[in-house]
Amino acid sequence: MADHDPECIFCKIVAGELPSLRVDEDEDTVSFLDVNPATPGHTVIVPRRHTADLLSISAADLAACNVAAQRVAERAIDRLGAVGVNLLNNCGSGAWQTVFHFHLHVIPRYADDPLRLPWIPAAGDRDEIAATHATLSGNPG
Amino acid sequence: MADHDPECIFCKIVAGELPSLRVDEDEDTVSFLDVNPATPGHTVIVPRRHTADLLSISAADLAACNVAAQRVAERAIDRLGAVGVNLLNNCGSGAWQTVFHFHLHVIPRYADDPLRLPWIPAAGDRDEIAATHATLSGNPG
Repeated sequence: MADHDPECIFCKIVAGELPSLRVDEDEDTVSFLDVNPATPGHTVIVPRRHTADLLSISAADLAACNVAAQRVAERAIDRLGAVGVNLLNNCGSGAWQTVFHFHLHVIPRYADDPLRLPWIPAAGDRDEIAATHATLSGNPG
Repeated sequence: MADHDPECIFCKIVAGELPSLRVDEDEDTVSFLDVNPATPGHTVIVPRRHTADLLSISAADLAACNVAAQRVAERAIDRLGAVGVNLLNNCGSGAWQTVFHFHLHVIPRYADDPLRLPWIPAAGDRDEIAATHATLSGNPG
């Protein structure tokens, strides 16, 4: 099945073979919290169909990932109090790409946060991540 | 004309009222070299229709900007010797956005370049920028 790479961790997340904290999904995409968040609510958007990077992704999947990113960005601003977001795609190992399944980072920004890119990957606080997941994924209260 | 903001510098570039070094254009988008490049070939992709940011852009224009970014990325790798690219969108002043007409940055990456984001805006070397423009915008030799 060309759309699924059994060795790819993002394909395993899409298939439910690895756990993730999903915040959004549709027919073409899955969005889940980054396990090493740059800021609270940092989300990774992936196409369900495996493809290595920006150079190989179809125009349709690229569009679908970006529309998903718009939804997640809106929710981060509405529900988490973010003042804006950065969208980031890393294409190639020389451009900080580490998982070779196309993905868009949605990085919520907060007033006076000290974000610099690339961020230093570090495990986030589990309770904070669980709370962020509940806020970002559920229907608004 | 709602699609054009007479005060917007990117609308003026789209309309040809301000100069730019274009590297790509189509019915919906214009792509030009950033005047303060983070790396050689750093290109800004804008929709022709004025819209402030990621939250307000139409799905169609967002898709068109991303397809243009794919074209520019491929050319940066093929013609400039880039080893990859970063795509970056800044949405909101708290997320480094300074021009409020949606734009995607395509930042070519080079082996062992020291890029960190946000980059420090500084005027590039004019001759180098002219050479980059010729390489990136023309048909391949």
